[in-house]
Amino acid sequence: MKALILKEGGFATKAPESIQLTDMATHLTFGELDMPEAKEDQVVIKVSLASVNPSDEMFIQGLYGQKRIAGKAAGFEGVGEVVSSGGGAVADGLKGLRVAFAASPQGAWAEYVVAEAATCIPLIDAVRDEDGAAMIVNPLTAIAMFDLVKKEGEKSFIVSAGASQLCKLMISMAKDEGYSPIALVRRDEQIDLLKGMGATHVLNAENGNFVEELSGICRNDKPRVFLDAVANNTSASVFNTMGRGARWVIYGKLDTELPTIQEPGQLIFMQKQIEGFWLTSWMMTTPMEEKVAAIQTAQTRFATGEWKTDVTAILSLEEAMESLPEELAKPNGKVFIKP
Amino acid sequence: MKALILKEGGFATKAPESIQLTDMATHLTFGELDMPEAKEDQVVIKVSLASVNPSDEMFIQGLYGQKRIAGKAAGFEGVGEVVSSGGGAVADGLKGLRVAFAASPQGAWAEYVVAEAATCIPLIDAVRDEDGAAMIVNPLTAIAMFDLVKKEGEKSFIVSAGASQLCKLMISMAKDEGYSPIALVRRDEQIDLLKGMGATHVLNAENGNFVEELSGICRNDKPRVFLDAVANNTSASVFNTMGRGARWVIYGKLDTELPTIQEPGQLIFMQKQIEGFWLTSWMMTTPMEEKVAAIQTAQTRFATGEWKTDVTAILSLEEAMESLPEELAKPNGKVFIKP
Repeated sequence: MKALILKEGGFATKAPESIQLTDMATHLTFGELDMPEAKEDQVVIKVSLASVNPSDEMFIQGLYGQKRIAGKAAGFEGVGEVVSSGGGAVADGLKGLRVAFAASPQGAWAEYVVAEAATCIPLIDAVRDEDGAAMIVNPLTAIAMFDLVKKEGEKSFIVSAGASQLCKLMISMAKDEGYSPIALVRRDEQIDLLKGMGATHVLNAENGNFVEELSGICRNDKPRVFLDAVANNTSASVFNTMGRGARWVIYGKLDTELPTIQEPGQLIFMQKQIEGFWLTSWMMTTPMEEKVAAIQTAQTRFATGEWKTDVTAILSLEEAMESLPEELAKPNGKVFIKP
Repeated sequence: MKALILKEGGFATKAPESIQLTDMATHLTFGELDMPEAKEDQVVIKVSLASVNPSDEMFIQGLYGQKRIAGKAAGFEGVGEVVSSGGGAVADGLKGLRVAFAASPQGAWAEYVVAEAATCIPLIDAVRDEDGAAMIVNPLTAIAMFDLVKKEGEKSFIVSAGASQLCKLMISMAKDEGYSPIALVRRDEQIDLLKGMGATHVLNAENGNFVEELSGICRNDKPRVFLDAVANNTSASVFNTMGRGARWVIYGKLDTELPTIQEPGQLIFMQKQIEGFWLTSWMMTTPMEEKVAAIQTAQTRFATGEWKTDVTAILSLEEAMESLPEELAKPNGKVFIKP
């Protein structure tokens, strides 16, 4: 079968010049792999569509919290039809169904992939392939992090990289539940778009008076949680501007610049805190019923059209080798691979 | 009455060149104040000895989490005799007793001071004035932070500024309870001293191979908590060297250098976390029985000699104006003011 195959193993050995994927050929090759085989409680899926997430970009470059294995296909999630089972009631029951899946541990950028039966989500017809292929990583992260906002008790919260697919999911969900997101972006044209989706404030972090503007909003709206995909010194300024009890929750690293803690005294005297969020940890520590509820929320939102995945491009495996970096650089949408 | 009086109000308006107190006359004046008066549930104490803590140094310079009030006496804690009560059963019951006190909100560097009756600790004779005058800020911080280590479940933990009075208290307590402190210092002569007190490892953070050495210890001993009074880039390296689930707990800022988060990905993928500790918050959020237990632990340890406050100097109010910065710069002991 055809696949995009990892050329390197382990983690990157030096700090990257850029987090964005710029060169496919260093990390991946388009080639043939043996058909994968399912063990007990696993299934083989014929992949119809696989998504490309920021976590894939980082993983391929060795910058993600999971070791690469040279010779394996890349790709964390997708949608496809279950063609065979390795045995076990759940796996057997999935045969012939269209499912959203998380590849175990990876391999979605291939014609066929193995997944744990327990992580496969049978899809209802109303969910498009484009939504099914991106139904795990972003939606569950959005739901889990928004849950963290809800538990904190303040209606207002801050997100960076506000125009990302993930943030759009959070913004529309927050609006429906009466919350007031403050979205940070880097392009003026994203401001009206996100306000239309439900963001209470949208600030361009490149503006000269950004910190001042944010400071006024923080005094008024009192956001306690900052969900941050960038983790640079702009992020550090945002955290520094927030009030008492603020939590800076880092879940991505879209910039190579390292952030400086501007006032360590704030951690002492204002009970501020810096932490991380990783879906994989959430999966391992969250009770099953909460996970199932999150998955049902995601499927329902996509089926009703409350959530919709914006598509930038759908590329074949071969096209991905050529133009994935270029397509990923375009704003406002998601790139898919169709093996 | 005579007192060391704050010349400035509010917080410092610019970042300091040094955290250490270098110039008394900018911030304090030696002068006369009216005798303080106790309200209900308060007492007036004739101060026999007041301690000088790092928090006093920061407060006087406007760097602490509490606003200065120009014209009030400085000083957070001390020991003395209760000479009058503002009324209320507890306050009345304290009359004539020797007590350790926390000044409310400050004023211990004076002949007389007002304190909340509820914060006064009647002392048994076996506790020396030098221990009673330093029985609240450092000992309760030590007990509360060591409790945080115990709750985390690993026997090993790291402390910076290892030769401070506070760390010595923690190290000897940890040894007695079978824990393994890793102490960081900046002078070789402190290494044997702290090993003698119970530190399992003592590292000079100025050594070239410090990070490498710490890295080996972390792999083996797996410390989860780093109690940090310095908050500079050496601290950031310590945190970066620690393993999965590490908590960097900042409780002081002995260096003006601002720390950079060296690998934000560790917060995401290794569940690391950066937070603060402030005794005032702990006091406000901890149940009364835990606080009483902590106070009894402190008094018992001082009475039995398990804890002993090392004295660098005891200065009169007038002498403090002259030589407090110079005495504070000496290592290994505590400075007191005797009004």
